Formats: sequence, structure tokens, C-alpha cells
Amino acid sequence: MSIKIGIMGYGNLGRGIECAIRQNDDLELVAVFTRRNPETVKILTEGVSVCASADVENWKDKIDVLILCGGSATDLPKQTPEYAKYFNVIDSFDTHARVPEHFANVDAAAKASGKVGIISVGWDPGMFSLNRLYANAILSDGADYTFWGKGVSQGHSDAIRRIEGVKDAKQYTIPVESALEAVRAGKNPELTTRQKHTRECFVVLEDGADAAKVEQEIKTMPNYFADYDTTVHFISEEELKANHSGIPHGGFVIRSGKTGWNLENNHVIEYSLKLDSNPEFTSSVLVAYARAAYRLNKEGQSGCKTVFDIAPAYLTSMSGEDIRAHLL
Amino acid sequence: MSIKIGIMGYGNLGRGIECAIRQNDDLELVAVFTRRNPETVKILTEGVSVCASADVENWKDKIDVLILCGGSATDLPKQTPEYAKYFNVIDSFDTHARVPEHFANVDAAAKASGKVGIISVGWDPGMFSLNRLYANAILSDGADYTFWGKGVSQGHSDAIRRIEGVKDAKQYTIPVESALEAVRAGKNPELTTRQKHTRECFVVLEDGADAAKVEQEIKTMPNYFADYDTTVHFISEEELKANHSGIPHGGFVIRSGKTGWNLENNHVIEYSLKLDSNPEFTSSVLVAYARAAYRLNKEGQSGCKTVFDIAPAYLTSMSGEDIRAHLL
Repeated sequence: MSIKIGIMGYGNLGRGIECAIRQNDDLELVAVFTRRNPETVKILTEGVSVCASADVENWKDKIDVLILCGGSATDLPKQTPEYAKYFNVIDSFDTHARVPEHFANVDAAAKASGKVGIISVGWDPGMFSLNRLYANAILSDGADYTFWGKGVSQGHSDAIRRIEGVKDAKQYTIPVESALEAVRAGKNPELTTRQKHTRECFVVLEDGADAAKVEQEIKTMPNYFADYDTTVHFISEEELKANHSGIPHGGFVIRSGKTGWNLENNHVIEYSLKLDSNPEFTSSVLVAYARAAYRLNKEGQSGCKTVFDIAPAYLTSMSGEDIRAHLL
Repeated sequence: MSIKIGIMGYGNLGRGIECAIRQNDDLELVAVFTRRNPETVKILTEGVSVCASADVENWKDKIDVLILCGGSATDLPKQTPEYAKYFNVIDSFDTHARVPEHFANVDAAAKASGKVGIISVGWDPGMFSLNRLYANAILSDGADYTFWGKGVSQGHSDAIRRIEGVKDAKQYTIPVESALEAVRAGKNPELTTRQKHTRECFVVLEDGADAAKVEQEIKTMPNYFADYDTTVHFISEEELKANHSGIPHGGFVIRSGKTGWNLENNHVIEYSLKLDSNPEFTSSVLVAYARAAYRLNKEGQSGCKTVFDIAPAYLTSMSGEDIRAHLL
């Protein structure tokens, strides 16, 4: 008996979920929901329905877990509590400041319906959060560092694209190697924004645009670029397509801390990801937590949860005996 | 109200537990138990009793969690099920092949007494196991690699010390950098024992011992050294004390795996530890899980568990609100 999964929203993340389900024999994709006209949406899996998102309620008894692939700004704050009325749900809500509010809304809806909702699943928030928690629980006296990259920031790429004269752009966030090394050496450095990451931009100009003006506008953009050392490369549309069409990402979570009667010993815990495809990796985390949501709900649990609340054994299809024999 | 901890066994690990408790305000050391004459055992914490291990039952109502610091070969297989009759217990049982049997014995005892027993806690087994599980659950199609070191192997150091003519010795296990790099590059290499680790030995000879004979005996020792590239350095007793008296260790857990409709994208997940003191770090993990054992038992749970069965939130003294606000 496989776990029946529905996908709400079919962009990069939705397609990643579809691929990840294919890699897991105990999961089955039963329907994809879209706000677009379903007839215009072509998915990869044969024999699976594409339906209007407005019809999702009709699938109440045919779907075990609905994975929500909308954006954190406007989609998920509405969708996750709404769909938790009918389904076990998973989202990748990543607006850190609004987590308490989102958690409360999903918790109320999921408790009322007797369903499980798991929010903020992916790698950050998600696997990075878990690693921050484990490392903090182990090393009480220490300092946390999170570095992102090398990877594409969608938000920063979009910000460049909004500049007049820019036809297309890709922005990479890059951790500063010397900062990483100082942290790894247990030096507990205090690092400014500029000392942690640099930003590299590949920009395609509109015909006749003023390169110097665009470069200046990028480098001085508040919040996005002004606090960073930023490099701008102007390239052709062909080059952008050929060399910068992927969506790689990754990063590092490091905690350095002391133990001993007089705190005389230092320890460094490091977790890192190097991802060819940010949405596909995020999707792989989401489907593992979809498995957990289904099982927890089968056990009678309900309400909102995060990665912190879920025992690791729920994520794998392997039995308790098998994981103790092969992974412990 | 702090959680009352007892320590069974006062060697390197027991002392590490004592130090770790001092770093956590919600934990309180109430007694240390020893098989030696308690009057001969001097501990670091003022005002805490040192008692004979035979008397531990008398502490049944005064200790919330008993942390077992014995060895995996003969102590823990007996101690953990025995003490689970009276206490919530934690051990660092690390004989991988005997985990199923140990789990069953502790589970039966702990279920009968209504207590929680958490076995195989530390970094390997422990944090490395967790990282193998998370990475396997996320990347279904992939390969696992565990490297140890650079660090002191107690077992290998002991093996050298048993050779005739050897006065003292320290052995370091060292991961092969080129193997690590191939794994990190997503090449999924097949690696022999020799290709993964080298062994470096620092040996103090007895007066008049034959260095060439000792070196030959080390390098050809089956299981311990014969399958590795081994380097032997002969040094003075003073040098050994000055430069090799620490117990550092560490290592790497890496999973490399593919995603995408045609498995076209590669991802690398890496977790690494660099530890100045192996026993103190292990102790820090053990006390975090002692906190979890206490809480799970308060919620009415009983039986044997491993790190796989415990939701991360149980490990920290921070509230759910705080971890969502600060670590998610």
C-alpha cells in the first residue's frame, strides 16, 4: 500500500516533487493541482490527473498527503491553514520572521481537522535548522555560523532584472573562504555581512543600455547588494543560457564550542550541502517529511509540526530493525 | 527543577559527563558510582557523593537518569538491561554487530519497569548514524561514505602496547585526502580499506628493544594494520607525553546521490566533526539524550530507543517557541 501524494502548484518545486516521488517506491503521485487552466499544464508522469486547484476538496479521501509548492510571501500563509482542513500537508515556508504566526494558524486548522501539517521543510529552513538544533544541544558553550552558496539566489536575480536596461540576470551568493576557514579553525570570529559572503552577477543588457549605470545601480542597491562586495559581469544572452541556466545551491552550518572542566577543549561540528538543483533537493526533503506526516497521522497525531518535532525514523521507509542493523 | 543525573563508572567518559553536566543549568549531578573503593575516587564536583556501584539501587528515587560509562565488550551488555530495571538509562554501546541483541535486552527490561533506555549514543554510533539516516531518507539513489580521523584509536594504541618491547604507544587514524575529495566531487568511488584511511603510530620502546622487529610486527598485524598503509615513528617517552597525550578524534559522513527525472543532478551532503576530546564530545551528546530520556519517560514512554527514535526538540532545554524563533 503506497502513500498517496498530491502536489499543489507545478513550478520548479512541483516538478521536483514529481521526480522525487518516482525515486521512492512507497510513494505514489495521484494528482497535480494548478491555478492555471489544467489543460495547459503537461506533467511528466503518465496517467496522473492535472486538476484545477479549486477542485482539491473533492480529493479529500483519495490523497494521504498534499505537498504545497507555492511561495512564502502570499501563497503559503493562506494555503497551508486552508488545506490542513482536509489533508495532511507539508510546506517549505521560509519567511523566518513569520514562522510563529504561520505555525499558530496551521496548528489551529490541523488540530480541528485531526490532520498533521509540517511547515518550513527543505534545507534552510529544514536540514540546516536541524543541524543548528543538534549542534546547540550538544555544545552548550559555542557560536553558530551559517554560510550560503555557492548558489543562485532567485530573489537577488529578480532584483537585478527589475533594473532598467537589464534583459536577464543570474546572481550567485558565494561564501568567503577565509571566513569559513577561521570558523573551522575554532577562532569564533565576529563576522560582518561583507566578511561572510560575496555576490557575483551575470547580466544581459538590453540593446543600447548603459553598462556603467547598471553596474552602479546593482552595487549600491540597499539590502540586496550595498553591504556586499559585488562583482558584475556583462555577458550575452547565449552565454547566460549556456553557462548559467542551472539552479545550484548549498551552504554550511558550523558550530564551534568548548567543553571540559575549564572549557579547555574545542570542537567543530560542520554540516554542508553541495546541490546541483536547489528545487530538486528541497523536494527530496519534502517527500521524506510527507512520509512522516502520513505515519504520524496514522498514529493519531494532529496539529502543526516542524522538523524539530519529528523523530528521524519516521522519514525512511526502512524498518526499525533495518536502520539499527545498517545505519546505526 | 533540574534533572537529576547519576554517573556509573568514572573513567574518561564519566569525567566528561561530569564536565558536560556543569555546562547545562537544567541538569544536576547527584552521585557517581564506581566499582573501585569509593574512598579512593576523587571527583571534580564539590558536595557530590561517590558511591559503590553495588549500592545504586538505593538511589532509585533520587536519580532521574543514570548514564552508563562502561565498556561495550563486557560492561554494557550486562549493565544497561540491569539498571533499566530501576532507572532511565543512557549508554554509548558501540559494538555494531551486537546492537539487535542489546536493543532487545534493554527493551524488555525497560518495558517491564516503565523506564526509557537509550542505547548507542555518542558520535559513531550516534550523530554519524543520524546523519546517515537523514541523508539516506533524502537521497534515495546514492552512496554512503564514513571516514574517521584524524584521531586517536584506543583499540589500535592498545594493540601496539601489547607487542613485546613496546613501552607505550599512540595510534592515529587518518582519512586519505584524495579519497575524501573524490567522494566530495560526487564521483562515487569504490574504495578499499587501504584507500580510505592510513595509520600513523608513535611508539616508545623498552630499553634494548629491536625497533625493526617492532615496526615489522605492527605493520603486519592482521585486522589492525595489515590492510593499511602504516607509518611508525619511534619517539621518547617525554615526546609522547608532550605531543600525544590528547584524545582528539573526528570524521566525516558523506552521502552523494542523484535526483531528477533522469537522475541528471548530483548532490553531496557532508557532516563532519573535529574534536579536541573524543570522550568529552561523546559525553556532551550523552547528556543531551539524558534530557530526552527524562522527558520521554515523563510523557509516559518506556522501552529501548536509539537516536533514530527521538525527535530533536527533546534534546534541548529551549522551548518549542524559542527553537522555532531562533534556530528554524
